[in-house]
Amino acid sequence: MVVHEREPYNAEPPRTALAGHRVTPPDAFYSRNHGPIPEIDPAAWRLTVDGLVHNPLELSLEQLRDRFDDVEVTATLQCAGNRRAGLLEVRDIPGEEPWGPCATATGRWSGVRLADVLAHADLHSDAAHIAFAAPDVSPLPDPPEPYGGSIPAAKALSPEVLLAWAMNGEPLPRIHGAPLRVIVPGWIGARSVKWLSRVTAQAEPSANYFQATAYRVLPPEADPSRAGPGDGISLGPIALNCEILSPDDGAQVPPGPAQVTGYALAGDDRTVARIDVSVDGGRTWTQADLDAGDGPWAWQHWHTTVDLPPGDVEVTARAWDSTGALQPESPAHLWNPKGYINNSWARIHLNSA
Amino acid sequence: MVVHEREPYNAEPPRTALAGHRVTPPDAFYSRNHGPIPEIDPAAWRLTVDGLVHNPLELSLEQLRDRFDDVEVTATLQCAGNRRAGLLEVRDIPGEEPWGPCATATGRWSGVRLADVLAHADLHSDAAHIAFAAPDVSPLPDPPEPYGGSIPAAKALSPEVLLAWAMNGEPLPRIHGAPLRVIVPGWIGARSVKWLSRVTAQAEPSANYFQATAYRVLPPEADPSRAGPGDGISLGPIALNCEILSPDDGAQVPPGPAQVTGYALAGDDRTVARIDVSVDGGRTWTQADLDAGDGPWAWQHWHTTVDLPPGDVEVTARAWDSTGALQPESPAHLWNPKGYINNSWARIHLNSA
Repeated sequence: MVVHEREPYNAEPPRTALAGHRVTPPDAFYSRNHGPIPEIDPAAWRLTVDGLVHNPLELSLEQLRDRFDDVEVTATLQCAGNRRAGLLEVRDIPGEEPWGPCATATGRWSGVRLADVLAHADLHSDAAHIAFAAPDVSPLPDPPEPYGGSIPAAKALSPEVLLAWAMNGEPLPRIHGAPLRVIVPGWIGARSVKWLSRVTAQAEPSANYFQATAYRVLPPEADPSRAGPGDGISLGPIALNCEILSPDDGAQVPPGPAQVTGYALAGDDRTVARIDVSVDGGRTWTQADLDAGDGPWAWQHWHTTVDLPPGDVEVTARAWDSTGALQPESPAHLWNPKGYINNSWARIHLNSA
Repeated sequence: MVVHEREPYNAEPPRTALAGHRVTPPDAFYSRNHGPIPEIDPAAWRLTVDGLVHNPLELSLEQLRDRFDDVEVTATLQCAGNRRAGLLEVRDIPGEEPWGPCATATGRWSGVRLADVLAHADLHSDAAHIAFAAPDVSPLPDPPEPYGGSIPAAKALSPEVLLAWAMNGEPLPRIHGAPLRVIVPGWIGARSVKWLSRVTAQAEPSANYFQATAYRVLPPEADPSRAGPGDGISLGPIALNCEILSPDDGAQVPPGPAQVTGYALAGDDRTVARIDVSVDGGRTWTQADLDAGDGPWAWQHWHTTVDLPPGDVEVTARAWDSTGALQPESPAHLWNPKGYINNSWARIHLNSA
C-alpha cells in the first residue's frame, strides 16, 4: 500500500494490485479515515435507529441477522479525493492527501437492506434524509467531531443500500468498518460510513462537518479554511470517471502491441457505455473492449491492445456514459480548493524505447 | 421560428423567444418530426396497451380521464440534436438538421401517470421495457416505418412519466402530439412520443428504427449509412448541458455591465449545482445566480451581470451538476456522425464596441 498518512490511516494500493481483479482483495482495498480506527466489541455493540420514525430500534448484530433478509451486492467505492494528484499538478492543495487513481475498489458486501430496517422502524412522512453516525472522532473540525453524514431518503430506501457485516465472503475487517458499515453504491465513499452506531431519520441533511462543510466542490477562488456549512456543491453520486491500471504509470514497455487495462465508473444509476484509448495524444482513438460486469453497482473493467510507438508515449483513456456524455479533457478546469472529483481523462506515461 | 425543414416540419425558436420564460409559450416550443403530422379524430382514437400484461387495455380519452388520477408535471424536453450546429463547425454532418440551442423547451403537462395505466394493465414480471408506437410514418428507414421507441420499465413506472393531453393548461396542440403524448422527463425528447397509439410491455427495447438504429452516438469513424441496430450508445437520459439565451449570439451590446441569462439541464434525476460565466475566454469566471425552479424535471434558468469590455467579446457559460461534474470544454471531442449530445461549454459572440 502507498501510505499517505499513518494517523489517521490513509492508504491506497499501487495500480498493479487492482489490475485484473474485478473484486478487490481486502488487503488491496483503499483505506480513507478521518480519525483513529475504533475497536468495537461486536457482542456489546448496538445499532440505534431513531429520529423521525414511529418505531425506534436498538439492534444487536444477531437481531439484524435474524430479523431481516440476507443480501449481497457487489459495489465499488470511490473516495471523492480519488485522482487528486492530477489536480495537484495544476495547483497546490494544502492539507489534503495526494490520492492517486486507486482510492477506488470493489467488494462483495453482505448484510441487510437499509430499506428493510427503515421499513421496520416505520419512517414518518417528513423523513427526507437518513443520517449515519460513527464513533471515530476527527480532529479536523473545530471542536473535534465524530464522523457522520447523510443520504436522501430516496437513496436510503433503494434496494442496493446495505448495512454490511461481510466483505468478499469474510467477516468485515476492522479497518473497513466492523462490526457494521453502510454501503451506498454509486455514491462517494464518504457516505459509506464505517463503524456505524446510529441511523437517524430527519427532515434535513446531516449537520455533521463531513456532510455540511467537507466533501464539497468549492469555487476555485474560495478559501477552504473559511468555508462554512452549505458552501459549494455537496457531493453524493459519483461522477463519470476512468483510469488505466496496467501498464503502470512510468513503466518500461517494449514497442509494439501492448495490452492496456483499466476501470471506469459512471456513478449512481448510470452505466459506462464506451471507453476510448489513444497513444498519440488524442489524435486517434481505439475503442476498448468492456469486460464482463458484476451488476449495476460495480466498476466496469476494460481492456484493449494498442500499438506502442518507440520512445516516450502518453497513453490516454476516456469514458462515455449512457447519456452520451464524455469526461472533460483537462484537470485545469476541474481544480477546486479541496481537490475533489478529478474526472479528467486518464493519462499515463510509458517508456517503450 | 427558425424552420430547418418544412416536410417533415422541424423548427426551433430564436433564443429571445425562450429567454425569460420558465414555461415556454406553445408557439415558441420546438417541433421535431420524422414524418407528416397526423390528423387524429380524438373521438375515434383509442390507446392500446398490450404485450407482457395480464390485462390488455383499449382506452378512449374519456376512459383515461375517468379511470386515473389527473397529474401535472412541469418538464423540459430537449432534442438529442440540440446544439448540433456547434458540432457542424467541427466537421460536416450530412443529412442532419443544424439545430441551435433552442430545441429545448419546458411545458406544464397534464394527463395521467403512465405507471397508473401500467398498474391497471398488470405487467408480467419479465416486462423490462415499455414501447411506444405512433402513426406518423418516417421515410428515413428502409422500408419506411412509423415512429416509435421505448424506455426501461423502471423509468416508465416512475411517477413523473405522463400520458399527457394538455400543455400549459390548454389542450395539447396537434403539432405537439394531440390527442395524447408520452412525456418522459429528463430523457431525450425522442422518447416523448407524440400521437401515441400503442403502449407495449416487452422483454427487450423497441426494435423501431428510432430506438434500435437512430438516436445513438456512433464513434467518429463510423459510417452512419451503414450503422445497424445496436451500434453506438443508445440515448436515454439527457447529459448535463447549458446555453445562453440573452443576449442573442451576435448582438450589439454597449460595453459595461450587461445581464446574461440562460438555461441549464442536468438530465434525469441529477440537478444543476452551479453555473459559471466568463467574458475573457475562460481565464476568470463569475458564478451566476440560479432562478427559482419549477421542480426536479424542469430546466434551471440562471442570470448574472458581467462587465463587458469594448470590442468583440466571447461570452462562455458552463454548468456543474450535483455529482461535481463539469461539462466538457470543446465540441471537437464530442463530434459524432449523427451529431447528437453537443454538451460542450456554451459560447456566444457579442460586439460591444
